Amino acid sequence: MEFSASQIAGFINGKIIGDENAVITGVSPIESGEAGHLSFVAQERFADYIDSSKCSVLIVSEKLLTKESYSKTIIAVEDAYLSFQILMNLYKEMQGRKSGIEDGAVFHETSVVGENVYVGAFTCVSEKVRIGDGTQIYPHVYIGKNVKIGKNCVLYSGVRIYDYCAIGDNCIIHSNTVVGSDGFGFQPTKDGYQKIPQLGNVVIHDNVEIGSNCSIDRGTIGSTIIGKGTKIDNLIQIAHNVKIGENNVIAAQAGIAGSTVIGDWNMIGGQVGIVGHIQIGNQVKIQAQSGVNSNAKDGEILYGSPAINAGEYRRNYVHFRNFTDIIKRINTLELNSKDKTNE
Amino acid sequence: MEFSASQIAGFINGKIIGDENAVITGVSPIESGEAGHLSFVAQERFADYIDSSKCSVLIVSEKLLTKESYSKTIIAVEDAYLSFQILMNLYKEMQGRKSGIEDGAVFHETSVVGENVYVGAFTCVSEKVRIGDGTQIYPHVYIGKNVKIGKNCVLYSGVRIYDYCAIGDNCIIHSNTVVGSDGFGFQPTKDGYQKIPQLGNVVIHDNVEIGSNCSIDRGTIGSTIIGKGTKIDNLIQIAHNVKIGENNVIAAQAGIAGSTVIGDWNMIGGQVGIVGHIQIGNQVKIQAQSGVNSNAKDGEILYGSPAINAGEYRRNYVHFRNFTDIIKRINTLELNSKDKTNE
Amino acid sequence: MEFSASQIAGFINGKIIGDENAVITGVSPIESGEAGHLSFVAQERFADYIDSSKCSVLIVSEKLLTKESYSKTIIAVEDAYLSFQILMNLYKEMQGRKSGIEDGAVFHETSVVGENVYVGAFTCVSEKVRIGDGTQIYPHVYIGKNVKIGKNCVLYSGVRIYDYCAIGDNCIIHSNTVVGSDGFGFQPTKDGYQKIPQLGNVVIHDNVEIGSNCSIDRGTIGSTIIGKGTKIDNLIQIAHNVKIGENNVIAAQAGIAGSTVIGDWNMIGGQVGIVGHIQIGNQVKIQAQSGVNSNAKDGEILYGSPAINAGEYRRNYVHFRNFTDIIKRINTLELNSKDKTNE
Repeated sequence: MEFSASQIAGFINGKIIGDENAVITGVSPIESGEAGHLSFVAQERFADYIDSSKCSVLIVSEKLLTKESYSKTIIAVEDAYLSFQILMNLYKEMQGRKSGIEDGAVFHETSVVGENVYVGAFTCVSEKVRIGDGTQIYPHVYIGKNVKIGKNCVLYSGVRIYDYCAIGDNCIIHSNTVVGSDGFGFQPTKDGYQKIPQLGNVVIHDNVEIGSNCSIDRGTIGSTIIGKGTKIDNLIQIAHNVKIGENNVIAAQAGIAGSTVIGDWNMIGGQVGIVGHIQIGNQVKIQAQSGVNSNAKDGEILYGSPAINAGEYRRNYVHFRNFTDIIKRINTLELNSKDKTNE
Repeated sequence: MEFSASQIAGFINGKIIGDENAVITGVSPIESGEAGHLSFVAQERFADYIDSSKCSVLIVSEKLLTKESYSKTIIAVEDAYLSFQILMNLYKEMQGRKSGIEDGAVFHETSVVGENVYVGAFTCVSEKVRIGDGTQIYPHVYIGKNVKIGKNCVLYSGVRIYDYCAIGDNCIIHSNTVVGSDGFGFQPTKDGYQKIPQLGNVVIHDNVEIGSNCSIDRGTIGSTIIGKGTKIDNLIQIAHNVKIGENNVIAAQAGIAGSTVIGDWNMIGGQVGIVGHIQIGNQVKIQAQSGVNSNAKDGEILYGSPAINAGEYRRNYVHFRNFTDIIKRINTLELNSKDKTNE
Repeated sequence: MEFSASQIAGFINGKIIGDENAVITGVSPIESGEAGHLSFVAQERFADYIDSSKCSVLIVSEKLLTKESYSKTIIAVEDAYLSFQILMNLYKEMQGRKSGIEDGAVFHETSVVGENVYVGAFTCVSEKVRIGDGTQIYPHVYIGKNVKIGKNCVLYSGVRIYDYCAIGDNCIIHSNTVVGSDGFGFQPTKDGYQKIPQLGNVVIHDNVEIGSNCSIDRGTIGSTIIGKGTKIDNLIQIAHNVKIGENNVIAAQAGIAGSTVIGDWNMIGGQVGIVGHIQIGNQVKIQAQSGVNSNAKDGEILYGSPAINAGEYRRNYVHFRNFTDIIKRINTLELNSKDKTNE
């Protein structure tokens, strides 16, 4: 796609300084701008790029502009970051959405598909599945029986939804994520572990995004639940009967063990592990790689394995780093003590 | 499916207290019971639910019953947990199994498929593959050449089995797990890393269950082996030439590096890492997030990174948590010592 | 396939001791040799196997040979390890490569496919995709629009390449790896998190190998980059706008957060986490499970979470292990100090 500077300025009510006919065909990060590309400068610390960038058109926050003219076309706006975001959203929308049923998609006769739905080649839709209006399902997706998928969702290629799971509206699930595989439940016997049937499901509420290669297990009985607006990164494990509230962000490779209950607006770092059967409150922050093995109250900030108060962990870790010196101090004290005893 | 209280009592030899015609259409965890659902109470600490639960039918351990009648139908049994398990297994069986070959499944002419097998749409079965009786293979599975799959297995949608791997009887492999990808073996040269061909395979013995999104690499030469009855959770890495014994449980996101040998009946926690070329004995317990970098003897309990005796780790970690106080004590000792020296 | 000892000796210029007509039908690790198999002995510490191995043919480094004849056929070479590698590579090549387009593969009419390409059943090739000569793409692969794949690549079953990503020559990507899923970028608002469009792509340079079940996210704007010759194990997370240089090796389950820049020839251990927006130099070694949260200089060796100098970490960890004794020493000092004060 091609845009002129004047078209772009029109989208975001910007003021053009320079050639309004300058054309851009792509977008660059400001640090690696290319001729023919658009970028933006919103912060003082990137202001040098206004002159040095190779981009043909720059969106710049007004307060950062100091000259009458520049070597490239400038679009002046109040908040360049915000304007750029608006533009990127517009651009994303312009790319359009997929629709129609591709050859090779397979539907059970009892499935019900809404309007303006896209279903890609080789996707399998099982019996009694319901798919809401405007939902896009890429090729190679498997949707088990009695699954319900809401409106305006996107399921990318290779997503697997096991039987009886339910997904709300406006959800995005990236490639190869698995929703509803059996929880890890076995009863030890002297002859080996006996499987405990996993008869529940997974319920995902509206506006949830889940990254690629995640595993979200079904409840043993009852549901594993992901609350409204929660965002889940890649390669994340959510075990059976976990209940996650609203508007959480969970970074890549975190894992949450069975039956744990998590509130709202928490931030869970990458590679964090949370044991089973505990409660995490609201607005808790858990630093990357922490191992949480007990309940967390609202607003706590946790770090370490096992996780403790993050400030405390950092202070103690400083002492850990000085451990060799600390031992020397103890040695000296012992020597002095001995000297005194020998006096 | 619908069941009456009397049908259910019949399955588990229970005694009905209340309406034997009460009908249930689903199952709830006791904490979130619903009208028209079945649940169970097996422990004293849940006894209050016998009165308060909204479930229409409850299976209850006899010893917990104190009244002549209840607001719902009670099915009294000796051990409600056990009876409930029996019921869940029955229910699972009643749901039936899939069978038949769906349109779009592709078989090489040299493949041999047993009786009463299910193969889903778009599954690819390569040359000389053998599939045992009663095995169910969901859509979008890839089975490389010369693979052998035993009887009564279930491979869910998106499983990938590379050439020459072998899977025993009664195995379950969940969606998007990969069996037999190349081990991570490269020879450094001054021009870069040169690939070492990975010519072995993976051998999975009977009664193994593997969760979703696992990666189990083939041996460089020889086999990567998963022993009988071992249960593997989601997102787990098993590197080339690892040998795992019988009846181990390995929790989500654990990783085992190349050529390590693991005995029987071990419990490996979530996000545990085990380095390559070591030996883990039998009945070892490894706490979540531990990093094991040396051999472990039978019965050891390990924790920490690097992992040490779990009790020792916990005691030391308590001191770590008090590190700031400990430093204050040392400061005081030093002050006192100086005072004395100055006396 | 069957080979005689004389054929094998021919491939590697070896000298036969024993029956030149001995036939092998497989290959074993030396520790578990089988009759009819080939193996090798290159190191003194395995020399006992020259006599005890059940293999029918052994390749042995000359310097390890002490007798005139052996119970099996010996092929003497200068460096048995090297010769065995040559043989394994030959064997791998002999197994041949796949070619041709299988029934069920789907191509957009604007896609361009090179010569001698293999595309498996049910693989989807979208508009304007270009696939180089000699590339092999297994069944069930999804290739989004405008993707470019170089020459002589192998993409195994279930790989997903999102729109606009680019892959160089001689790359290998194992099953169920996802390239180009959306970066994890959201703007908090009082009503929840708003998605920041992820409009960049992923660029993978020549000679890269990526294991199974990896997630490599596209840049927000600009590219996520994997440099030439870098080797990536299984279940690895590479976040948006990460730049990885040449000839790195990254072990399983490691994760690299957004916008971090990594140089050349680094070794990153299993389950390592690297935070976003930092710089890792060249020839850095990061021990397994470490958490790197600040820049690393060339040649550093790091360990711990947060990661520090590995030697320092190990020394401090020894003190950590002795913490209970250290506390006893402090207790004693305090007692002595008190005694003195009371004197």
